[in-house]
Amino acid sequence: MRAVMAKARSVGTAFGCVRDSNHFGIAGFYAMMPLSEDMIGVAMTNTAALGVPTFGRMPMLGTNPLAFAAPADEEGAFVLDMSTMVVTRGRVEVYDRQAQALPEGWAVDEKGQSATDAEHVLHNLTYQVGGGILPLGGLGEMFGGHKGYGLAVMVDVLCAILSGGAFASEIADTPGSSARVSHFFGAMRVDAFRDTLAFRRDMDELLRTLRKAEPAEGQNQVYVAGQKEREHEATCMRDGVPVPTGVLEEILDIGRTYGVSL
Amino acid sequence: MRAVMAKARSVGTAFGCVRDSNHFGIAGFYAMMPLSEDMIGVAMTNTAALGVPTFGRMPMLGTNPLAFAAPADEEGAFVLDMSTMVVTRGRVEVYDRQAQALPEGWAVDEKGQSATDAEHVLHNLTYQVGGGILPLGGLGEMFGGHKGYGLAVMVDVLCAILSGGAFASEIADTPGSSARVSHFFGAMRVDAFRDTLAFRRDMDELLRTLRKAEPAEGQNQVYVAGQKEREHEATCMRDGVPVPTGVLEEILDIGRTYGVSL
Repeated sequence: MRAVMAKARSVGTAFGCVRDSNHFGIAGFYAMMPLSEDMIGVAMTNTAALGVPTFGRMPMLGTNPLAFAAPADEEGAFVLDMSTMVVTRGRVEVYDRQAQALPEGWAVDEKGQSATDAEHVLHNLTYQVGGGILPLGGLGEMFGGHKGYGLAVMVDVLCAILSGGAFASEIADTPGSSARVSHFFGAMRVDAFRDTLAFRRDMDELLRTLRKAEPAEGQNQVYVAGQKEREHEATCMRDGVPVPTGVLEEILDIGRTYGVSL
Repeated sequence: MRAVMAKARSVGTAFGCVRDSNHFGIAGFYAMMPLSEDMIGVAMTNTAALGVPTFGRMPMLGTNPLAFAAPADEEGAFVLDMSTMVVTRGRVEVYDRQAQALPEGWAVDEKGQSATDAEHVLHNLTYQVGGGILPLGGLGEMFGGHKGYGLAVMVDVLCAILSGGAFASEIADTPGSSARVSHFFGAMRVDAFRDTLAFRRDMDELLRTLRKAEPAEGQNQVYVAGQKEREHEATCMRDGVPVPTGVLEEILDIGRTYGVSL
């Protein structure tokens, strides 16, 4: 992303790929890097296959997140950071731990039929016997599942086909190594299009209009992308970062093994 | 798009906006223009507000389609052309004409609650009294409605905020004029990243792998974006374009009024 930003600085917009990489971290983190220079940021990655294409039964696409960030003036930046699947594997794991049925439209079984048994879905993914998580839009075409599927392929094209990396179901974690994933980064200078302050002020107006929109009955407010994360970050900066007991135990365990105190 | 392609030819990638425009036509048409020169194409537009943000009740976003096209070699090109809302207004009109209830997750009423009465949803949209169509992902956050909402805002940012055009609920058709919509176009030369033939062959492999993937029980095949439209186009080129009787009558009527025969 730093290389892409340097190039955008001199020519207006720039894009670049990384191949044969490993764990990506947070897509939004990279997309936000250009914000401080009044650039729009884009970041994507492909990931280990767990997503089943519309009308299919085998996992052939990753969660393939895409992130897009644009600067505002008084408002916080707009930061969209989303998986192109309906949910992440982590969400399914939470349902499994709570022995709760998955909502219809999240996953399919090894025959490509709607699946609500979280343990079964995770088992199938681990052994790659078919079935997995559905694209954004869910099962079939009725709620636009083919759109989420298309977005996931778009991310694979920009990350992996454009870089000559591994793609589709070639991407799989093995016990011995991380998936060889590919990434795509972009930066676009706002002033290549328009006066930067005018852009930031229109962003303010757009984001404020959405944030202050009348909420649905039973809801407290309309959010904009990035807002919840920013509010959570502020709380953590003030009160500290909450660490789940299980994670703390694990950290202490590792510390004892290597003779390092907290 | 022609201007953007000319610039991409000389510098690798290029992007441009149009503001104060009117009916966009087909997003995929523009995204496909760069394909013949081995460029990736991007096209987006904002549209008259009919989409309700997650947790909201007033329409504040258009169907805001985005299109993305990438060339292959022996396979047809990958052409994603999708509204960022769960359905278009046209789909709701079809349900209304057939007096059929909308599936839950397509629309909300003036209180932001799930709505299945197509006639009521269309009435609300016409009089802008609240309620409208939901983003891709449907109601609330359970199925990722906040992602479709985020994508719709991203399209508005790239089309309208970047061009200094009208945005969000400012965009509305009036009896006297079309909405003042904005567009965003992009072209990226594949050879700025990688050998073009190698890219096209990897695209072939990706698209063929998806197309030939084992379908779900009860389905005939897995499709890739652009395939159905290409197959339909081939049928029309061979057999002619089917015209619904109502449309034919209308054409003949207009012809009679102006003394023009079919």
